[in-house]
Amino acid sequence: MTAATTTPFELRQLIRKGEHTGNTSGFAPGYVQCNLVILPADWAGEFLQFCQRNPKPCPLVAVASQPGEHHFPELGEDLDIRTDIPGYRIFEQGKLVRETPEISDYWRDDLVTFLLGCSFSFEEALAADGLEVRNISEQVNVPMYRSNIDLNPAGRFSGRMVVSMRPFLAADAIRAIQICTRFPNVHGAPVHLGDPALIGIPDLSKPDFGDPVTIKEAEIPLFWGCGVTPQVALEQAKPPLCITHSPGCMLVTDLPNSRLAVL
Amino acid sequence: MTAATTTPFELRQLIRKGEHTGNTSGFAPGYVQCNLVILPADWAGEFLQFCQRNPKPCPLVAVASQPGEHHFPELGEDLDIRTDIPGYRIFEQGKLVRETPEISDYWRDDLVTFLLGCSFSFEEALAADGLEVRNISEQVNVPMYRSNIDLNPAGRFSGRMVVSMRPFLAADAIRAIQICTRFPNVHGAPVHLGDPALIGIPDLSKPDFGDPVTIKEAEIPLFWGCGVTPQVALEQAKPPLCITHSPGCMLVTDLPNSRLAVL
Repeated sequence: MTAATTTPFELRQLIRKGEHTGNTSGFAPGYVQCNLVILPADWAGEFLQFCQRNPKPCPLVAVASQPGEHHFPELGEDLDIRTDIPGYRIFEQGKLVRETPEISDYWRDDLVTFLLGCSFSFEEALAADGLEVRNISEQVNVPMYRSNIDLNPAGRFSGRMVVSMRPFLAADAIRAIQICTRFPNVHGAPVHLGDPALIGIPDLSKPDFGDPVTIKEAEIPLFWGCGVTPQVALEQAKPPLCITHSPGCMLVTDLPNSRLAVL
Repeated sequence: MTAATTTPFELRQLIRKGEHTGNTSGFAPGYVQCNLVILPADWAGEFLQFCQRNPKPCPLVAVASQPGEHHFPELGEDLDIRTDIPGYRIFEQGKLVRETPEISDYWRDDLVTFLLGCSFSFEEALAADGLEVRNISEQVNVPMYRSNIDLNPAGRFSGRMVVSMRPFLAADAIRAIQICTRFPNVHGAPVHLGDPALIGIPDLSKPDFGDPVTIKEAEIPLFWGCGVTPQVALEQAKPPLCITHSPGCMLVTDLPNSRLAVL
């Protein structure tokens, strides 16, 4: 069984049994992968509002129907949020205190689960259209930067947007904007293009997260709202408990990426 | 009766009676205006193919159902292509030989009429979204440039694309691309953005057609396929007869601009 032929269901079962560990990137291609955020119920309302007010960096794919719910039948057969992700991070008061391969022991009836869209889906749509996604062709993590773009605050959540960057020639940049516009639930269209200094980024070769990529002559950097944004906001808001996925270890759903296209 | 309250039907009747002359820009807002190209039947097939192969600069809104047809009931009540445009240009062997307010005397049973989309429609959509369209706010003709982008040839028609330019801040540029993508029949999304030298334009302050506009700090120039492109191709192909509208004097149809939106 290889990455390309494993179904999302099979992959989640392997993860649950501890037989798949580490990154999910490149596994079960064609299916939506999600970022995970779990918060106590008394923080959940504010975080929901924060996501709704900042849909580019924090695109909500699903929210648990009620506190304590750990199944998402609409996202996947027999899917259990507590065991089906290869790695979790436990934050207390905004500080990372532990990484763990499953969270059954941490589960409580007041925990509310949020699943956010991830750039894997739109990168796949770009590649399917024949565009070169530089972080894929150079086999590195996408470069991410702290921008000066203020987020819309909601309760205890606020901060500035983290953006990811992918360079394209102008005609491909226009095509990339068109393609990503179809996928608002996975960050949608870019938030900026061109001069990085205009959004407070001094040096593209020094990302705050991920790895730098080559920018060739005549290429224009495009900047997307990034899923690291809510993590930074959570670190600042300091809820007593917050559980996220480990970087690169996503929830793999049964939803085809095309289901997220709004048009 | 003012520009804003005249219906397309009323405006065409005024034009036919010689009571409205000159530009149609700003009249009958909200309705599609079209570029006109009329060719002998033995040139029509190649021109049709040329438009189909170059939809960005030559977006076809309608083609006459047969040679000699001068009514377009699907585009407007009692619309007659021979009298309902304020000004026409007669070209012989690719050379402008006459301007005339109507073409009944030139009409022949072998003439085929083409109607092409015009940027007025997408400029209206941009303005309705709150974007500033610089050539409108500065009350000048949009600047147009001969680019080095090769057209797809069809028979005797070939050449390079003429592009129009409108500057925007990055976030507005992304929004403009999204909006224009909905309107492929009126030039659609831009063909280029950023460095003009990459498409063979040495100096934005010296357009080949139209007027220069201000480009403010941090603004990015966006370039669209332009309706002057087919006129340049026609001048080069040198058909024995060709009739077009005079610049700015368009065919005003009964079609709401929103009807051209594909999504």
